[in-house]
Amino acid sequence: MHEQIFSEKDPLSPINYTYKVSKVLYSGKSKFQDMLVFESPDFGRVLVLDGIVQLTEKDEFFYHEMLAQVALHAHNDPRKVLIIGGGDGGTLREVLKHKSVEKAKLIELDMQVVEVSRTYLPGLASGFSDPRADVAEMDGSRFVKETAEKFDIVIVDSTDPVDAAKVLFTDEFFADVHSVLNGDGMLVMQTESLHFHRRFVIDVQQRLGKIFQIVRLYTAPLATYAGNWWTFSIASKKDNPGIPARKHEVETKYYDQQVHRNAFLPASLYDRLMGGELEW
Amino acid sequence: MHEQIFSEKDPLSPINYTYKVSKVLYSGKSKFQDMLVFESPDFGRVLVLDGIVQLTEKDEFFYHEMLAQVALHAHNDPRKVLIIGGGDGGTLREVLKHKSVEKAKLIELDMQVVEVSRTYLPGLASGFSDPRADVAEMDGSRFVKETAEKFDIVIVDSTDPVDAAKVLFTDEFFADVHSVLNGDGMLVMQTESLHFHRRFVIDVQQRLGKIFQIVRLYTAPLATYAGNWWTFSIASKKDNPGIPARKHEVETKYYDQQVHRNAFLPASLYDRLMGGELEW
Repeated sequence: MHEQIFSEKDPLSPINYTYKVSKVLYSGKSKFQDMLVFESPDFGRVLVLDGIVQLTEKDEFFYHEMLAQVALHAHNDPRKVLIIGGGDGGTLREVLKHKSVEKAKLIELDMQVVEVSRTYLPGLASGFSDPRADVAEMDGSRFVKETAEKFDIVIVDSTDPVDAAKVLFTDEFFADVHSVLNGDGMLVMQTESLHFHRRFVIDVQQRLGKIFQIVRLYTAPLATYAGNWWTFSIASKKDNPGIPARKHEVETKYYDQQVHRNAFLPASLYDRLMGGELEW
Repeated sequence: MHEQIFSEKDPLSPINYTYKVSKVLYSGKSKFQDMLVFESPDFGRVLVLDGIVQLTEKDEFFYHEMLAQVALHAHNDPRKVLIIGGGDGGTLREVLKHKSVEKAKLIELDMQVVEVSRTYLPGLASGFSDPRADVAEMDGSRFVKETAEKFDIVIVDSTDPVDAAKVLFTDEFFADVHSVLNGDGMLVMQTESLHFHRRFVIDVQQRLGKIFQIVRLYTAPLATYAGNWWTFSIASKKDNPGIPARKHEVETKYYDQQVHRNAFLPASLYDRLMGGELEW
C-alpha cells in the first residue's frame, strides 16, 4: 500500500516538516484559507491551515497551556479575558479552567475554523459550549479599536505573521490592546521560533517595550512548529509576569509554577539576544 | 532551475525534516556508514551520516556547547577528558577551550568522519591539531573496558542509539565509564529528544541512577535534530552538575552560567517525567 504523506510548505521556515497521514478527515476552503484535518499515526488529528500545521491532538497542550496559563497565573485576579484568533478552542479551554474568569471573549476572523474544530477536534472545542464563552466573527484588530469593553488579559493566538495575521503585530494594534486593558492588564502573544525568526522576536519585544511598562519573553519546546523553541511575548502594565501571582489550582499536563519561572529566558541570554550578540 | 532537496529518513522520528541543498560537497561510504556533506542556503555546511543530519555549521554550537560546557564548568578542575564519538571535532573544540584540560582523548569508531570534517568543516575540526588532543580509531565501549587511564569527564557524543551506537547506552558501558572516572568524575551524554524519545530518556536516567551517585537531565533547543528539545543526561560521582563550580572564562555563543542552571529540568517537571505522569 502506498504511504500517504503531508509535507508542510512553510514560506517562513528553512526546514519543512513531513508527516505520515493515516486518513484525511476534512479538506475544504473557507473565505480566508485552505483547511485540512488529517489523522496521523503519531500525533492524532492534525489541523492544517494554508499548508501549515496549527496543532496536533497529541502535543497541542504544550502550546495552549503555555500561551494561556502563564498570564492567567501571573495576573492577580483575571476576570475578563479576550482571545484574538484561537478558533480551534484550545486557548479558550485553558482560560475557562480558571474559576475567576467570568467572561472569555473570543474574536475569530474565520468562523469556519470554529466549526471544523467543533466537528473534528472535540478535545479542543469543549469551551465553546461554556456559558462564559462569547464568540464573535470579526477582525481582532478592528475589535480592539472599536470596543468599549475592558479586559484583564488579552491573548493573541494567531497564525504566522503573514497575510491576515500581519495586522496583529503592528504598533497600532499593540496600542489598541494597551487601551482595552485594565490598569493591571497583560497581553500575551505567540511570536514564532527563536531559531528561525530571531529578528522578528527582537523587533516585537522592542516595539512592545515602547508601549508597555514590562515586556518579557518566554519559550516552550514545540515539536510540531518548525524551528521549535517557540516564543511567547508577554507585556504587562503593572506586575512582573515572570512570577506566578496565584496558586496552581487548574489541571495541566506540562505547565506548573516551576515551569512558569523556568520558561523565561535567563536575563543574561535575553540581554545578549536584545543586544544583537546572540547571532547565528 | 530545479531545486535540490535533502529529505531525512529518520527511523526514530515521526516527523522527517527536509532541507534545501545548494551543492553537494562530498558523498561517500565509510566502513560503517554513508556520509554526505552538502551546502545549505540556510545552515551553511551540513554533515549527514546514514541519512540523518548530524550538524549544521550555523547552529552546531548549541549542541556542542551544551554537550561539553555544562560538565566542563560543573567540574572543579577538569584535566583529563575522554570523548567517545564526536569525530566531527565540535565537542573536542569546546573541551580544549579550557586551559585546565591537559589531555583530551577522542575515541572514534569511524576515522573517516574525522577526515571529512578536517576537509569540509574546518570550524569544527580545529581541535585536531592541538597537541593536547589524542585521537584514536576504536570502539568506545571496548576502550573504556580495556584502558588503565583515568578521566575527570567522559563525554559520549554519539549518533542515535541504533546500530554501532547502541552499545554506548548499555548498563555494561555505564559501569565501565564509572570505573574509568576519577572520584569526582562526571559522565555526560546526548540522549535524544524529550518529545519523541521520552521513554528512552527515562530508561537511561533510571539505569544511570543505579550506578552513579547523582543523575540529572538538562535540555537544549536544537532546530536541526528531529523533535528538538534535546536531552543530555549527566551523571556524577560527587558534585551536583546543575551548578557551575568554576567561572565562565571561555568564549561561547549560547552557553553561560545562567543558561547552565536554567537548562536543567525544573524538579517538579523532572519528577512528573520520571513518575510517568508526563505522558503525551
